[in-house]
Amino acid sequence: MMDGEKDIAKEAVLMRSEQMPEGTPTVKGYDFNEGIDYHRLFLSYRHSGFQATSFGCAVEEINKMIAAREKPLPEDFSDHLEEDEFICIRKNCTVFLGYTSNMVSCGVRETIRFLVEHSMVDCLVTTAGGVEEDLIKCLAPTYIGDWYLKGRDLRARGLNRIGNLIVPNDNYCKFEDWVMPKLDTMLEEQNTKGTNWTPSKIVARLGEEIGDSSCIAYWAAKNKIPVFSPALTDGSLGDMMYFQSIRSPGFRVDINEDLRRLNQLAKKSINTGMIIVGGGVVKHHICNANLMRNGADYSVFLNTASEWDGSDSGARPDEAVSWGKIRPNATPVKVYGEASLVFPLLVGETFARHHHTICLTNQPASSASSSSSKVPVSANHFS
Amino acid sequence: MMDGEKDIAKEAVLMRSEQMPEGTPTVKGYDFNEGIDYHRLFLSYRHSGFQATSFGCAVEEINKMIAAREKPLPEDFSDHLEEDEFICIRKNCTVFLGYTSNMVSCGVRETIRFLVEHSMVDCLVTTAGGVEEDLIKCLAPTYIGDWYLKGRDLRARGLNRIGNLIVPNDNYCKFEDWVMPKLDTMLEEQNTKGTNWTPSKIVARLGEEIGDSSCIAYWAAKNKIPVFSPALTDGSLGDMMYFQSIRSPGFRVDINEDLRRLNQLAKKSINTGMIIVGGGVVKHHICNANLMRNGADYSVFLNTASEWDGSDSGARPDEAVSWGKIRPNATPVKVYGEASLVFPLLVGETFARHHHTICLTNQPASSASSSSSKVPVSANHFS
Amino acid sequence: MMDGEKDIAKEAVLMRSEQMPEGTPTVKGYDFNEGIDYHRLFLSYRHSGFQATSFGCAVEEINKMIAAREKPLPEDFSDHLEEDEFICIRKNCTVFLGYTSNMVSCGVRETIRFLVEHSMVDCLVTTAGGVEEDLIKCLAPTYIGDWYLKGRDLRARGLNRIGNLIVPNDNYCKFEDWVMPKLDTMLEEQNTKGTNWTPSKIVARLGEEIGDSSCIAYWAAKNKIPVFSPALTDGSLGDMMYFQSIRSPGFRVDINEDLRRLNQLAKKSINTGMIIVGGGVVKHHICNANLMRNGADYSVFLNTASEWDGSDSGARPDEAVSWGKIRPNATPVKVYGEASLVFPLLVGETFARHHHTICLTNQPASSASSSSSKVPVSANHFS
Amino acid sequence: MMDGEKDIAKEAVLMRSEQMPEGTPTVKGYDFNEGIDYHRLFLSYRHSGFQATSFGCAVEEINKMIAAREKPLPEDFSDHLEEDEFICIRKNCTVFLGYTSNMVSCGVRETIRFLVEHSMVDCLVTTAGGVEEDLIKCLAPTYIGDWYLKGRDLRARGLNRIGNLIVPNDNYCKFEDWVMPKLDTMLEEQNTKGTNWTPSKIVARLGEEIGDSSCIAYWAAKNKIPVFSPALTDGSLGDMMYFQSIRSPGFRVDINEDLRRLNQLAKKSINTGMIIVGGGVVKHHICNANLMRNGADYSVFLNTASEWDGSDSGARPDEAVSWGKIRPNATPVKVYGEASLVFPLLVGETFARHHHTICLTNQPASSASSSSSKVPVSANHFS
Repeated sequence: MMDGEKDIAKEAVLMRSEQMPEGTPTVKGYDFNEGIDYHRLFLSYRHSGFQATSFGCAVEEINKMIAAREKPLPEDFSDHLEEDEFICIRKNCTVFLGYTSNMVSCGVRETIRFLVEHSMVDCLVTTAGGVEEDLIKCLAPTYIGDWYLKGRDLRARGLNRIGNLIVPNDNYCKFEDWVMPKLDTMLEEQNTKGTNWTPSKIVARLGEEIGDSSCIAYWAAKNKIPVFSPALTDGSLGDMMYFQSIRSPGFRVDINEDLRRLNQLAKKSINTGMIIVGGGVVKHHICNANLMRNGADYSVFLNTASEWDGSDSGARPDEAVSWGKIRPNATPVKVYGEASLVFPLLVGETFARHHHTICLTNQPASSASSSSSKVPVSANHFS
Repeated sequence: MMDGEKDIAKEAVLMRSEQMPEGTPTVKGYDFNEGIDYHRLFLSYRHSGFQATSFGCAVEEINKMIAAREKPLPEDFSDHLEEDEFICIRKNCTVFLGYTSNMVSCGVRETIRFLVEHSMVDCLVTTAGGVEEDLIKCLAPTYIGDWYLKGRDLRARGLNRIGNLIVPNDNYCKFEDWVMPKLDTMLEEQNTKGTNWTPSKIVARLGEEIGDSSCIAYWAAKNKIPVFSPALTDGSLGDMMYFQSIRSPGFRVDINEDLRRLNQLAKKSINTGMIIVGGGVVKHHICNANLMRNGADYSVFLNTASEWDGSDSGARPDEAVSWGKIRPNATPVKVYGEASLVFPLLVGETFARHHHTICLTNQPASSASSSSSKVPVSANHFS
Repeated sequence: MMDGEKDIAKEAVLMRSEQMPEGTPTVKGYDFNEGIDYHRLFLSYRHSGFQATSFGCAVEEINKMIAAREKPLPEDFSDHLEEDEFICIRKNCTVFLGYTSNMVSCGVRETIRFLVEHSMVDCLVTTAGGVEEDLIKCLAPTYIGDWYLKGRDLRARGLNRIGNLIVPNDNYCKFEDWVMPKLDTMLEEQNTKGTNWTPSKIVARLGEEIGDSSCIAYWAAKNKIPVFSPALTDGSLGDMMYFQSIRSPGFRVDINEDLRRLNQLAKKSINTGMIIVGGGVVKHHICNANLMRNGADYSVFLNTASEWDGSDSGARPDEAVSWGKIRPNATPVKVYGEASLVFPLLVGETFARHHHTICLTNQPASSASSSSSKVPVSANHFS
Repeated sequence: MMDGEKDIAKEAVLMRSEQMPEGTPTVKGYDFNEGIDYHRLFLSYRHSGFQATSFGCAVEEINKMIAAREKPLPEDFSDHLEEDEFICIRKNCTVFLGYTSNMVSCGVRETIRFLVEHSMVDCLVTTAGGVEEDLIKCLAPTYIGDWYLKGRDLRARGLNRIGNLIVPNDNYCKFEDWVMPKLDTMLEEQNTKGTNWTPSKIVARLGEEIGDSSCIAYWAAKNKIPVFSPALTDGSLGDMMYFQSIRSPGFRVDINEDLRRLNQLAKKSINTGMIIVGGGVVKHHICNANLMRNGADYSVFLNTASEWDGSDSGARPDEAVSWGKIRPNATPVKVYGEASLVFPLLVGETFARHHHTICLTNQPASSASSSSSKVPVSANHFS
């Protein structure tokens, strides 16, 4: 072996490195010897690498949205509010929450409902399924099933599968019973009062009617949070409108008025944050609305899609920056993960934590002391 | 070592197997010693395993659709045709083709255009981007870029990134110039003639206007193939409608009439086939329409999504069977693959092959012999 | 519209369903109005759907392993123990933990170290990187970087990227300084004492030498937990052996003796559990060893791979059942997720929870009361 | 609406763009109106976007390897050849081909065999399954099955599933019958002649013994192409070695000598190309060997993994650049795709095309004319 040759490999393998910049964080995981403190575990994620780090960054990004919301509206802002009856900028940062239908089929529905109930978000964008599964769950439950139940057998039994969940078809029959009179009333209002129905108006009406505090749409209606769903006909609600159209044709669902409403909301907002769970139309629709203000200030995407098929679903936030949908100086975050597992944790470390901190802080001294025995953030006893 | 113990492992490892059923195909790949004959290579895929086998099955499934299309319509069928002015069942098997916007941004657009030009499919469902990118490409080109160009730099230069493609923002300015007068005309027709505009009517109108035979919408309009796009406002076309709404409000885009049209098409079809490239609304919308006839007869899904996040995009065809969107006795196929690479091959082995076979067959003897010198299915010379 | 036709759609859409079996769990997410109690949140995951449900099932499956470990060894078991000096069945359930190199590069290392420190697992299988990154972190830290730092620039600066982490190349130079004398000693022992070095013996030796309680290998050596790594040469350790081979050839690394040791361990175990984080050789090697006993009793896979490419990495547990690597009556679980985010949570709800419960229980009364003020499972104060 | 406000949106949406650099290719798909010429279709992929473009780049990159191989070795090179008996640099570019076991289970085996038969690659790196499935297929076939056959039923019938393939367990029994005497002979040679067995020597021996020209190992042995498989014990071959160890212990499999051989091959090569199909140890092992020469010149990765879990499998080539495993000025390509479908196409457009071009060119005039009737590159007749 010649010396010269040996050096090629040694030099390549043992190349010297530059000093790392002062203050660069080092990778360090959580030490379970210190007990099980999930909040501290999640704090450690920021410097734990890979998607743990992405999660940590997403927590920071959402907390920036919350901090911006806490700031007062600009003093000269109020006069804008009257301009458009359907738009209302109530906070210094408008948070758009997008989610696909599966988020409502699974238990993430309760997390979203919590956010809407407490007006922590300002605008929802979802799919048809994201609207109707929420309403249908007020009429009958969805069940835990299995991914590998045979479709043929299930169909024979009238059981619809969504991943590892089962929705009995009777749920949709109940939905028909419930929703048909409402659709007929809306059609009548169109024909008599000239109402121009849009997806957001329809969802608001159904939310008013459902009268069930477990329901996202109920709280959205109550808290005047618009729910946009441009392809509202693409699901069970569409099936019902189709049946109505056979019987009593002419009900119109205008998506253009809703577009204006959504875009105006984005354009008039002081700051905006986007939290988008899943891909497809809910992701693009929120991003595109934020183009109307030359980009969102804060952004978190959570989904399982990758960019290599050129889909918008899988596109990294940096692609949206090129379009002007996210501001160039922003710090958007994408978490690659499955939302039923990850989204509640993200809310736990951000909105929920903020909510319960505020609640504790706002209590009068006497009640605070009594509540300390049933502190909402649990001590994780081994019950 | 005791004998008894040795047996545990040996018995487990060397367990005897049942005879495989007579005629079970064995795995065998293509032998390149026999030359490069891609058609024979693709035939070999059926028994090559994994997604090669899925590809082979998809070829068979689409060829079943083509064969069903070739059969005459039932004799008693004609009287149905008058019922609904917008629906026309022309073939014994109605093929629904769904595709997401990225398919039009990339070179798959030319493959889809070929299918529409030759009326090989009967109904298109796409997203807003799937409509507008097709039209915009008639005005200015999309460029090859790179996945890792910086969004901030691109935005400063007005260059929008879609995966590894670049669309200059000027293209959208040209689109505004082109489309705005059309939108104004449509608004006028709404106000004067009472036209109830729907996404499919808007796309048909734009297809009629574009006058460019490279365009999917051009051929769709010419061949009276409806293009459904329930969230049509979610893209550049929506941006233009929004600007119009600021200037001249009131243009309505009704998605309910379109829903009826789509569902009626599915319900009245003799047989149906679904070819769905990508996920999201285009996948669900076609499947849901096919529920109106208790399920599609033939189905091919091509996308990169997996089922484990509970999304409809990633759901296997068997999930659609449970819902009645695919017939229980059908043989649906999902190919997991990236469509820019895979979809043209799928068309090459099915529609294109069928088309060129028919063309050759239908030629008069003299022209056939002359055409043999420029046979459309090339000999793959090493030019 | 004829009545008959209408019925087709209505019957399909409104098909009646069978009653769900009594006791089928319904989908219900966690209600953050009840406070932020992550343990209760994770309990709710079992019935929350999608991967949340998979996570819940994985918690149950690992807790079954723990319960089986707690049971005493069979009374007639002891005489087996002498047979093979390297194998020691100490628990009624042998837990095999497999993990790929990236788990050690990121903060999951600390979680694995916790499991090994407290002898909660009995056998480790990892890659070369899984061994050496653990040792190298005792010499110099890994840093948080970014996914999109340019490779060319990094190489010029001697900074190696692993996802969003940075390992300065100096760390490998330090490793060379540290490990080379150890390799030379091992070579000498081979030549003088006839030691037949295997990956597990090498790792044990390095673990003994490192003297750092942050190190997985340190605790594995101390607690006599074998670390198998059949491709041990495939990494920095291999680079060093290669350099040694130029200078002082002849060091042998025998993987066959290790195979026997691993297989004997599986075969002689009373029960076995597999926890496999990632894919590739670490997944297959553990599964294959469990074939020697006709299948593992308990199994949890955690990775991001899907089955459709026919890889063993992506294969569902049911594929391993067909091979006899998992018992047919077992309840194996695959969680599709990214491990830096998910694995610590899985450990938090199983091993760590069990550990801290036992610790509390085992304390004498006086110390228990004093420790209650610094209870290891934290009250999540808003510090 | 105030004018000022309108401008925010309009300016963002209608921002003007810079001119694209002269000569930037535009996106254009293949036009099936021109017939079905797959070679021209694949040429069009380079400018078709997304993974079609990646495929086109991969074709270019492999063709660069082929061109580099065609160049003569440097004049002063020959004296290096004697240095190490096991290494032989025969071409001006050494091509390393890595592939996981599933590639051999499926029909890609025939494509790999073609490459090895014609000495188009110089070094193979694979897993244990990649070795043994190739040999076993000479004894009994693998069958086409289905992804969703129940593991429990299959195990009862002795049928092993690999994705949608079935390997009867009898195949492994036949393998035992065939391989056991060979292992015993090798053990004897170790004990009598002092042979230091390594994975590459074992595979070469088995390749010599199998005597079947359908076999990769047969051609690798014949053409003196080394097959590295550092975790050779991790599979059926390991099972057999384990059984041997119970009966006749002491057979050693040294992976360190193989490492030296692999690294020397990389270091002494004039140029190197890496073609890596799949992830895990086969990917890292080839890349790490190329670090010994400060990086590969040409690189193509083909797999389904994404980078976001921090795995080496999913890492983009640019990560390998940071480590010095790929040269900074190289143009490495990653194709995201499923290899059973994509790899044969990649070979068709590169090695196979080159092979058949050369064959045609090299034929004497008379035979060329006769062969023109059975031209290896088929005219794709509609048989």
